[in-house]
Amino acid sequence: MPQALSEIARLIGAELIGSDRKVSGVAALENAGDSDLSLCFNQRRVSELKKTTAAAVVMPRRYSRLLGEVPCSVLLVDDPRLALAKIIELFYPEQPVEPGIQPGAIVDPLAEIDSSVRVESGARIGARTKVAAGTRIESYVVLGAGVEVGRDCRLRTHCVVRDNCILGNRVTLSSGVVIGSDGFGYVADEDRTIPIKQVGNVIIEDYVEIGANSTVDRATLGSTRIGQGTKIDNQVQVGHNVEIGKNVLIAAQVGISGSVTIKDGAVLGGQVGIADHMVIGAGAQVGAKSGVGTHVPNGARVAGYPAVPVKQWLSNVFSQRPRKKRSLEGRQRRDK
Amino acid sequence: MPQALSEIARLIGAELIGSDRKVSGVAALENAGDSDLSLCFNQRRVSELKKTTAAAVVMPRRYSRLLGEVPCSVLLVDDPRLALAKIIELFYPEQPVEPGIQPGAIVDPLAEIDSSVRVESGARIGARTKVAAGTRIESYVVLGAGVEVGRDCRLRTHCVVRDNCILGNRVTLSSGVVIGSDGFGYVADEDRTIPIKQVGNVIIEDYVEIGANSTVDRATLGSTRIGQGTKIDNQVQVGHNVEIGKNVLIAAQVGISGSVTIKDGAVLGGQVGIADHMVIGAGAQVGAKSGVGTHVPNGARVAGYPAVPVKQWLSNVFSQRPRKKRSLEGRQRRDK
Amino acid sequence: MPQALSEIARLIGAELIGSDRKVSGVAALENAGDSDLSLCFNQRRVSELKKTTAAAVVMPRRYSRLLGEVPCSVLLVDDPRLALAKIIELFYPEQPVEPGIQPGAIVDPLAEIDSSVRVESGARIGARTKVAAGTRIESYVVLGAGVEVGRDCRLRTHCVVRDNCILGNRVTLSSGVVIGSDGFGYVADEDRTIPIKQVGNVIIEDYVEIGANSTVDRATLGSTRIGQGTKIDNQVQVGHNVEIGKNVLIAAQVGISGSVTIKDGAVLGGQVGIADHMVIGAGAQVGAKSGVGTHVPNGARVAGYPAVPVKQWLSNVFSQRPRKKRSLEGRQRRDK
Repeated sequence: MPQALSEIARLIGAELIGSDRKVSGVAALENAGDSDLSLCFNQRRVSELKKTTAAAVVMPRRYSRLLGEVPCSVLLVDDPRLALAKIIELFYPEQPVEPGIQPGAIVDPLAEIDSSVRVESGARIGARTKVAAGTRIESYVVLGAGVEVGRDCRLRTHCVVRDNCILGNRVTLSSGVVIGSDGFGYVADEDRTIPIKQVGNVIIEDYVEIGANSTVDRATLGSTRIGQGTKIDNQVQVGHNVEIGKNVLIAAQVGISGSVTIKDGAVLGGQVGIADHMVIGAGAQVGAKSGVGTHVPNGARVAGYPAVPVKQWLSNVFSQRPRKKRSLEGRQRRDK
Repeated sequence: MPQALSEIARLIGAELIGSDRKVSGVAALENAGDSDLSLCFNQRRVSELKKTTAAAVVMPRRYSRLLGEVPCSVLLVDDPRLALAKIIELFYPEQPVEPGIQPGAIVDPLAEIDSSVRVESGARIGARTKVAAGTRIESYVVLGAGVEVGRDCRLRTHCVVRDNCILGNRVTLSSGVVIGSDGFGYVADEDRTIPIKQVGNVIIEDYVEIGANSTVDRATLGSTRIGQGTKIDNQVQVGHNVEIGKNVLIAAQVGISGSVTIKDGAVLGGQVGIADHMVIGAGAQVGAKSGVGTHVPNGARVAGYPAVPVKQWLSNVFSQRPRKKRSLEGRQRRDK
Repeated sequence: MPQALSEIARLIGAELIGSDRKVSGVAALENAGDSDLSLCFNQRRVSELKKTTAAAVVMPRRYSRLLGEVPCSVLLVDDPRLALAKIIELFYPEQPVEPGIQPGAIVDPLAEIDSSVRVESGARIGARTKVAAGTRIESYVVLGAGVEVGRDCRLRTHCVVRDNCILGNRVTLSSGVVIGSDGFGYVADEDRTIPIKQVGNVIIEDYVEIGANSTVDRATLGSTRIGQGTKIDNQVQVGHNVEIGKNVLIAAQVGISGSVTIKDGAVLGGQVGIADHMVIGAGAQVGAKSGVGTHVPNGARVAGYPAVPVKQWLSNVFSQRPRKKRSLEGRQRRDK
């Protein structure tokens, strides 16, 4: 449905520069047609901005020096990513889906499924499992026995929640996610390695989102826990008895060993690894690919392997480049 | 079923300090109620130990100085993890499941499935595939054609064993595991990159356990092989023609390139990567996140990228700390 | 079907040394029986070569000094891996499979499936999705709505292609691959972290192959794109809005952050990580386990974390070896 730029400006808190008109969609700068709204918030895209065929462009206020060169209306904003989120919601409102249990779904007679839940063909739900209102369970999702799933969750194709695990409200599990797999716990008994049976569960709080093919192991005893609002990218491994706080951000392919604690608001870059039993403090930031073998204090920023404070890491990295730097300096000196 | 502490002490080889009584379950220290047995074997949990409400606590003999401060009966053991494994087995014995092929399973008429096998709804089993007694095949597991699965295996939801691969007895594959995917083999032919068809298989020996979403590629020719008792964590990649020995431990997110050999009893930390054709010796230990580009001798301990002996790695790491650098500079200055 | 060595020699462009005869299969050196053809192109296997029981062996021309010691006919080639690819094709021609939609497949009435397509039991295909001739869709594959799949594709069990994504011709997706999962895009809105709805798609061009459990996120707006002939190994993560060129090779467990560009013919080693918005030049090579935080020029070879030119990386690594220790000792000795 077409929307007036002035209306959009009001929605996203933007200043409209140029003529008001209606736009009918949102598109990337390189694809935008003459009835589309587009966005530019990357310095590298400024050249594309100048020749865009979009009807209008959202850009950060700090680019306002470019206004004269942009061939269309402009919406100036303080936070272009927040504007993007709101504009996409406007043009792509969530489509209602038909609730009900589709033929071919396998639901245990002892499961309790709210009538507003959608259970797609091939989904399997075990005994005593409860699913609350508004949740959507796609094909080939498997929920074990004694599972609890809150309101308005989205469980994508092929994700698995094993016995007794608990999901809060508005949780999203992407395709291939495994919740409640057995923790990696073994012990030597005479000449054999025997598994320690993992009989705890996983508890995932409200608004958590977990990316495709990530895995979260159940606790040996007690619970592996992921706090409210935490967002986890694809192919992340969360070990048994890990405790993750609220609003933590974890990028792709991170590996979190058993019994790690990650406190509220921490941020882990891609491919980070954390050794077992370590504590990552509240608001701490761990640089991509770091290996953390010590506790990280609240608010600290660390990087490298083993991870050290970012400043120290940069200084280490810099000190490894001396040869080239020296020879350059040497040449410059000779040039004088 | 409640158990007497004296009976448990006998089972796990513990010394019982304090009164004998019956306990009805096992729980983590922070959750244990007054009829639960609990465990403490981490120094960080000692403060919780002192205020526990558990009926009794298992703890290592080396904590015996704390005995006076623990408000309940105590079982002193030499190996608390082994005790934990046995206690959990006691309170959580494996539940018998109903054997048989559930409606909705798709079993080829030429497959040979023992009558004691459980094949859940949605599992698919190909032609000439054999499954031995006591094995449990969960929903949406796919076994290709010509597969062999031994006795008492556990194949979790959505795991896949492709054509002609062989599993021994008591093998566990977690959800999302892929056995027998095509190895990554390509070759340039004039101006195209063509795949080398992978026509070997994977052989997995008895007591092997493989974690969620791990992948094991089939051999180009011959077999990729995983030896008896080896345990593999989640999201591990095993390349084509790899040979892994017996009782190897491989932590999460390890990547093993094609044609690597890993000998008996080796241990690989999380996120380790091993270059193709390398040999990791028997009993060798590779530190987490290491990148191995050379052979590793039997019993060696290596770390870092590229991996070097642990002592050397530690010395390298230490030499990168500013303090040492400053002191070196100081010495040089003094030398002048 | 048995094949004459002379015929095989003609096919692979080899020089036949020794008697012509028929061989009935191809096998690894250690398994080859007296009617098998085998191959040796690894220096480490030369000792096995000398005692092989194979009927004939393919080996590189540069091993011809060994000819006198090999107890069977020999085919000398310039490129043994290319020979291997052709020989396997010869002995393992693709088996024709029965086309048609198997019972238990769930195909939307608005989907358009060519009559030569095979859709196995349990596959699910959404509305308006089109699948072209010769493609094979295995069990529990899920194609969303509005998906396009080209000719002669192979979609292995449990792979997922979400709404509106597009696959070219002869694309292979291994088991557990997820195409079109949501990109990891969030933004702070007052005290909450809200997701940026991901409404773009993924476009995969002809001849692309993607390994087991890899994930490719859809673009926020526009398309995540993988160019013709690119080969991706297992457990690789491709973020939203990534653009990958033609004939790129990406080894296992690589992580590519959002909005990265990888140009034609680049090669990424295993477990590489690339920070968001970076550009990897055409033909560039990134060493295994490297972390790339800067643009990489065309044709450059980089390694390490942070990635630097390979020569510099080797020099850094080399300077950490005991030599440094020795030089320290030397200096100390001079000090005395």
